[in-house]
Amino acid sequence: MTAETHEPFLLTPGPLTTSATTKQAMLRDWGSRDAAFIQINRDVRNRLVELAGGGDAFTCVPVQGSGTFAVEAMIATFLPRDGKLLILINGAYGHRIAKICDYLGRDYVIYETTEDTPPDPSEVDSMLANDVSISHVAVIHCETTSGILNPVAEIAAVVARRQRRLLVDSMSAFGALEIDVAGLPCDALAASSNKCIEGAPGMGFVICHTDALVETKGNAHSLSLDLEDQWNAMEKNAQWRFTPPTHVVAAFHQALAEHADEGGIAGRGRRYRRNCEVLVSGMRALGFKPLLPDALQAPIIVTFHMPADPGFDFQIFYDRLAEKGYVIYPGKLTVADSFRIGCIGRLDEQVMRGALGAIGETLEEMGIRECGPAVA
Amino acid sequence: MTAETHEPFLLTPGPLTTSATTKQAMLRDWGSRDAAFIQINRDVRNRLVELAGGGDAFTCVPVQGSGTFAVEAMIATFLPRDGKLLILINGAYGHRIAKICDYLGRDYVIYETTEDTPPDPSEVDSMLANDVSISHVAVIHCETTSGILNPVAEIAAVVARRQRRLLVDSMSAFGALEIDVAGLPCDALAASSNKCIEGAPGMGFVICHTDALVETKGNAHSLSLDLEDQWNAMEKNAQWRFTPPTHVVAAFHQALAEHADEGGIAGRGRRYRRNCEVLVSGMRALGFKPLLPDALQAPIIVTFHMPADPGFDFQIFYDRLAEKGYVIYPGKLTVADSFRIGCIGRLDEQVMRGALGAIGETLEEMGIRECGPAVA
Repeated sequence: MTAETHEPFLLTPGPLTTSATTKQAMLRDWGSRDAAFIQINRDVRNRLVELAGGGDAFTCVPVQGSGTFAVEAMIATFLPRDGKLLILINGAYGHRIAKICDYLGRDYVIYETTEDTPPDPSEVDSMLANDVSISHVAVIHCETTSGILNPVAEIAAVVARRQRRLLVDSMSAFGALEIDVAGLPCDALAASSNKCIEGAPGMGFVICHTDALVETKGNAHSLSLDLEDQWNAMEKNAQWRFTPPTHVVAAFHQALAEHADEGGIAGRGRRYRRNCEVLVSGMRALGFKPLLPDALQAPIIVTFHMPADPGFDFQIFYDRLAEKGYVIYPGKLTVADSFRIGCIGRLDEQVMRGALGAIGETLEEMGIRECGPAVA
Repeated sequence: MTAETHEPFLLTPGPLTTSATTKQAMLRDWGSRDAAFIQINRDVRNRLVELAGGGDAFTCVPVQGSGTFAVEAMIATFLPRDGKLLILINGAYGHRIAKICDYLGRDYVIYETTEDTPPDPSEVDSMLANDVSISHVAVIHCETTSGILNPVAEIAAVVARRQRRLLVDSMSAFGALEIDVAGLPCDALAASSNKCIEGAPGMGFVICHTDALVETKGNAHSLSLDLEDQWNAMEKNAQWRFTPPTHVVAAFHQALAEHADEGGIAGRGRRYRRNCEVLVSGMRALGFKPLLPDALQAPIIVTFHMPADPGFDFQIFYDRLAEKGYVIYPGKLTVADSFRIGCIGRLDEQVMRGALGAIGETLEEMGIRECGPAVA
């Protein structure tokens, strides 16, 4: 349990453990049209463009809802109705973009690799060469399904060379892994308040190339999710079109200040990498096997093979860890029976060691001596 | 300023002033798949169906985002792609439903009255008689533009007699004005966490006739806003499909408990009616003229004509009231130059008297002696 609140630590892909001070920023009611709240919005938007390396050419458009709302808004706003999207899939979030396109009735093709395999940039290159109707490419920065880091920069270079447009879902990576939207380049990048920035859930945002955003007028299928319309309104009066989640916005503002205090992306990434190292080496010492080789592992969430031991019941393991104050996450994989442990949120290496201690203790209680998978 | 927090009182249609205890419910991080959080969701959904008079035939589907997200989700899910919607418009929120239909590409007709005139049920009756292609009717319970109470029960009776389906936007009324979704009847009713229930903004919900909801499969234009898909998932595992705004949900749970403690809709409505009476009679004493006759005035938000006195500058009036701790709201009307003062949120008649005192003082400072409109 945390010293501050005696709540369990959330070792999940979100909602995450946030700082007490971030939550305390929600103890005030803001008028959404008040000057002080408008300044908070300006600060948040400017800071996010800065973190993304957007410079003057990019703008930030916030959107109410979860990360999926932001991704749907990005796809619907940026992919023209007569466009065609190439979706790089190696997990649930790639599949979700395909599902969004099904809803939107927009044309798409997929390039799917297994959940432990990143997309091959040269394969993307030939797909773009062979299908001139593909106008846009969508890639997941860190696919939370497995925790795999996808080669966004290499993909971006191919997409730019083939003169297509790139859309990035950086939901679980933004704020912890360096990204440079202007340098990639990309037209848009979506993320949310509640991942590596460590805010409360309830809003997402899309970092948009402003010139590209201007061209998107009329693309969106939804009033609520039309980023161009939201941006236009914000340019006029700096306000959200529809009631913003004021408390969540205030918490996000505080979380961004704490992110800066930690040294921005470099500092935040350093803590998460250390969390990940401590977790992976400790789990290996207990006999668990991570799904991914270290080179493909993003320091966000780690997938472990389920132990082959027939005495290992995941639900019991999960419940006992939760009782000890550590909430982990079930797997979502097709390639392997697995579970996941997150490295993000207001957690440090002491917490990770505490989790490892609780895992060791739980294995003892369950009488599990062998934690390796069926096929190692 | 409130005794609790020294924040300004929000006399607006939302975001509103909420109780300290409601905000304090956001001081904890919940895992979205945890049993305790799932129970909170169950409680919230059950309580909302109960408040709506839904009985066993109705279910509650929550949706991330602002009230507009919930309204768009309701229209998109319940209006079939080959359906046709009759929209009763007497303000901005009626127009917004038409705009949503434009985005969705769904067929609609409007019946528009001025902002101070409720729709005439007999006119709705003849429109339904004359156009058999109209499948659904949308009505705004309390149109926040003016604060007018629309005759939802009378409209519902006509719609039922003509065997069409009714969709109700009860955003600013639900929780303070009695409504009986089963008795009306209606297929769906949309509202949000941050109006008369006095929660934090960030989620809406739709009370749905379950049999009607089952028929909507495939209607929705958006993955994020598909109520049928969200409902199906919740029936299976009681969880949100995509990350819920956990802190906002926890605050809403607390706000619902406080709503019950106040005596539910009857008690909450009583306080708001008293707020409204004190406000209107005090403003009349100061010389202001409300837009609406008392019979059409919902106890939610009151529109006042702008004083004709050329010395009255609304921005100065607004700013000075804000400095004194009372945030009011500009008008949104086409029929009259006006401003609005809300009666909802964690406010009582003492607060309304305080606001009236601040208004009188501000008029003194501004040297305004005559607050009547140009044409009384």
